[in-house]
Amino acid sequence: MKKQNPKNASSKQNPAKALRKLQKRLGSQVSVDEDSCFRASLDNLRLSSLPTAVVHVQEPQDVRIVLKLANKHGVPVTTRGAGTSATGSAVPIQGGWVLDLSRLNQIEIDPIARIATVGAGVVTADLQAEVEALGLFFPPDPSSKKYSTIGGNIACNAGGMRCVKYGVTRDYVLGLAGFLADGSPFQFGLPLKKYVSGLNLRDLLIGSEGTLGVITSANLKLISKPEKRWTGMFAFKSEAAALKAVVGLFKAGVSPSILEFLDRQSVGCAEAYTGKPIFAGQPRSAILLVELDGIPVEVRAQRKRLLDYMLATAAAHREARSELQAEKLWQVRRTCSQSMFSIADTKLNEDVVVPIEKQAELIRYTIALKKKIGLSTPTFGHAGDGNLHVHIMYNRASESDAEKAKAGIQQLMQKVVELGGVITGEHGIGLAKAPFMSLQHSAPEIAAMRAVKKALDPLGILNPGKIFEPFEVWDHDLVDVKLPWDHR
Amino acid sequence: MKKQNPKNASSKQNPAKALRKLQKRLGSQVSVDEDSCFRASLDNLRLSSLPTAVVHVQEPQDVRIVLKLANKHGVPVTTRGAGTSATGSAVPIQGGWVLDLSRLNQIEIDPIARIATVGAGVVTADLQAEVEALGLFFPPDPSSKKYSTIGGNIACNAGGMRCVKYGVTRDYVLGLAGFLADGSPFQFGLPLKKYVSGLNLRDLLIGSEGTLGVITSANLKLISKPEKRWTGMFAFKSEAAALKAVVGLFKAGVSPSILEFLDRQSVGCAEAYTGKPIFAGQPRSAILLVELDGIPVEVRAQRKRLLDYMLATAAAHREARSELQAEKLWQVRRTCSQSMFSIADTKLNEDVVVPIEKQAELIRYTIALKKKIGLSTPTFGHAGDGNLHVHIMYNRASESDAEKAKAGIQQLMQKVVELGGVITGEHGIGLAKAPFMSLQHSAPEIAAMRAVKKALDPLGILNPGKIFEPFEVWDHDLVDVKLPWDHR
Repeated sequence: MKKQNPKNASSKQNPAKALRKLQKRLGSQVSVDEDSCFRASLDNLRLSSLPTAVVHVQEPQDVRIVLKLANKHGVPVTTRGAGTSATGSAVPIQGGWVLDLSRLNQIEIDPIARIATVGAGVVTADLQAEVEALGLFFPPDPSSKKYSTIGGNIACNAGGMRCVKYGVTRDYVLGLAGFLADGSPFQFGLPLKKYVSGLNLRDLLIGSEGTLGVITSANLKLISKPEKRWTGMFAFKSEAAALKAVVGLFKAGVSPSILEFLDRQSVGCAEAYTGKPIFAGQPRSAILLVELDGIPVEVRAQRKRLLDYMLATAAAHREARSELQAEKLWQVRRTCSQSMFSIADTKLNEDVVVPIEKQAELIRYTIALKKKIGLSTPTFGHAGDGNLHVHIMYNRASESDAEKAKAGIQQLMQKVVELGGVITGEHGIGLAKAPFMSLQHSAPEIAAMRAVKKALDPLGILNPGKIFEPFEVWDHDLVDVKLPWDHR
Repeated sequence: MKKQNPKNASSKQNPAKALRKLQKRLGSQVSVDEDSCFRASLDNLRLSSLPTAVVHVQEPQDVRIVLKLANKHGVPVTTRGAGTSATGSAVPIQGGWVLDLSRLNQIEIDPIARIATVGAGVVTADLQAEVEALGLFFPPDPSSKKYSTIGGNIACNAGGMRCVKYGVTRDYVLGLAGFLADGSPFQFGLPLKKYVSGLNLRDLLIGSEGTLGVITSANLKLISKPEKRWTGMFAFKSEAAALKAVVGLFKAGVSPSILEFLDRQSVGCAEAYTGKPIFAGQPRSAILLVELDGIPVEVRAQRKRLLDYMLATAAAHREARSELQAEKLWQVRRTCSQSMFSIADTKLNEDVVVPIEKQAELIRYTIALKKKIGLSTPTFGHAGDGNLHVHIMYNRASESDAEKAKAGIQQLMQKVVELGGVITGEHGIGLAKAPFMSLQHSAPEIAAMRAVKKALDPLGILNPGKIFEPFEVWDHDLVDVKLPWDHR
């Protein structure tokens, strides 16, 4: 892969000298060995681009040192948490230095104000465990939460399954501290519930994938932990029937905390993998998984409302009577995801969103697409938000498969935008979705975004090559590597 | 007042020619008469600066026409809803043209997806009425809601009383449509619950007070209307006791939908005005007003928890047994606000925020400040958020009063920032708070904000002179005018 230098910084470029200075300032916190550089070269997209050094940040001020030097010498800087990003947003695609923030893992909780102040490297699930021990709740739950860091969640505005009731990561961020591209410290927002002073750069940074600044800590809003949960699973003869029920549930006044959909292709994969149907006598059903939460009386009332509607429309159903049974129902969802690799060795996971009422039309399209391109298109996801993960499965070694997959993704994205949807609901753009930016946004909209990027990072040193630059993942080899979250 | 032309556009400046072109394009939608220009010259700050024309926008495309001409001829453009802003953010301080969006008042509601799509000119209370008729709820409730427009609410990220439970305007905005400074149309975000494509300019525009773009419509998130409400009022011997109870209620697990505080100065004003104590036998108490809402069983459980705590700490209490009684309790809050004008003819209303646990310290300071400057400092506000309205009352004709008030505000703002707070929680910066920007934000933070402003509005035509420019309201005469929301 050709490495490009940041455009405006080439005159000052002297990478070897810059590295020597960096090592002089930060000593053993700077790794340049092959193994460290390889580990920092990729994320869950599995596209590797080696940095020249990895800086293991011990305290926020280290970031300032790195950015000052990077500015002076025109070195690209890519910030990294756990590397769970699905789009290559954590890949140092133009080389340079990687800022590894995973050691910034302090957690402080104010249970009265209900605010947590956490380092960017705190693992999402660790925060959730600490918070829940105090009877509080931090709802954002990306599927990578056992590994992903809060900094990464904020950089990508991570979602998850609970967004239908509780919203996304952005909805829980009150303040951000960190460093601007030139190394100046910033605090945008504070641990306060109301704040309208000046332009809101806090929310501009959220979801900017490390292209506008480096976030070292965050003040997060916490809420009450739901007292009770209920989980149920429902089978439908068709995707259309299941997705009609999603709309019907909202009409009936049900407010689920989770509302997940699995299409028949996904269910078929899981059933082939485990060797038995999920609903006995109802193989290859489309499935809805529903969680309700709240105070017990509210959960009971919601359950009644839900069952009144569902028992008239679903082909079969199952309720969890215990935590263990609930866990078994959720296992179905996880098995679907893993079992898809029985179809082919590579999974393209597109996190598109369409209006809730248009989901049935999207699924008709994915089924038609399967026939058209001859590749499986199993789809599941967060039907309560209209946020469906459409997968295209293909074998990496087959050039013809890859061409079909590439064409399929392009057509899918066009369809999503036609339906009034968005090309990404929770993964972000990174490298993988850069080709579709112009489908979603007009030229003046993109020009406005680029102008903002240039205003905050005039030398283009922060995560260069992402979001706006032309990139085709297809032109690059992906690496075959086992990452901590791989269970296949 | 001297009018300044936007700095970068002076070479192209020909205001008379520009106005002729504007009139040719938009005909009778352009008003240049004295009366129209005066009405568009001020907001609730009551500082008047005349525009040369007011454009009554009939459809969004009119905005494009205005901005194209304004760019070509370097004319300042200030966007306006109802003009309820408390900070001068709607005042055309550098003259030019005012865009009046009040006719963009369409409302469309999708009750299944729970999304409203509304014109920028929709009056907040009108939207709330339509939404509540469908059993839905749009919580943001600035005190000006009977007059304020959604566009203005978004431009200032308006708050209100319900934020302690439901958050601020920003939390309900999914998508924004409008025009960039150069007249290009934009759609940032969509009527979808998840959206992470590209840089988030939607939230950058929210709260930017019309300095970055012109918002013509918004997609707003709706929630379920609470089934039941309960209101209670509690008297305390001192501010310290009342504000200790605020912390105590949170510790006790109470989740109020409203939690308002009135200090003894405010209560004293109301009691002098009505001629009787709010709590018989307990004159000049500090007061907490609490609303609970939700499903009936939840409200009952919360009420019990609240009363268990309050009856042990409050000096007296009163519960509303009906809607009418609740309205009477809220009347107390409103009377406090109006009755302050019995102290002096001018009210400085500072919407500061401090951490919840620091509110008692802030009130100790406002009482000390009263003694120090010899002006009343009645304070009430949203104690559940730490968002207190500190007022300094003075007589406009008295130069010495004005000097004391000016010094008092400066000291108050310093104290707020020392306490870890913010100089504005729901009003924004506008003109009135511009002198305090450097108390709140570091020079690099302000430079970053200004760089973003310049990136999106390189000619500086959008609401010039606001947020970042040095300005002292004290150097300008305020006008004595009755505005629609004046009830004194």
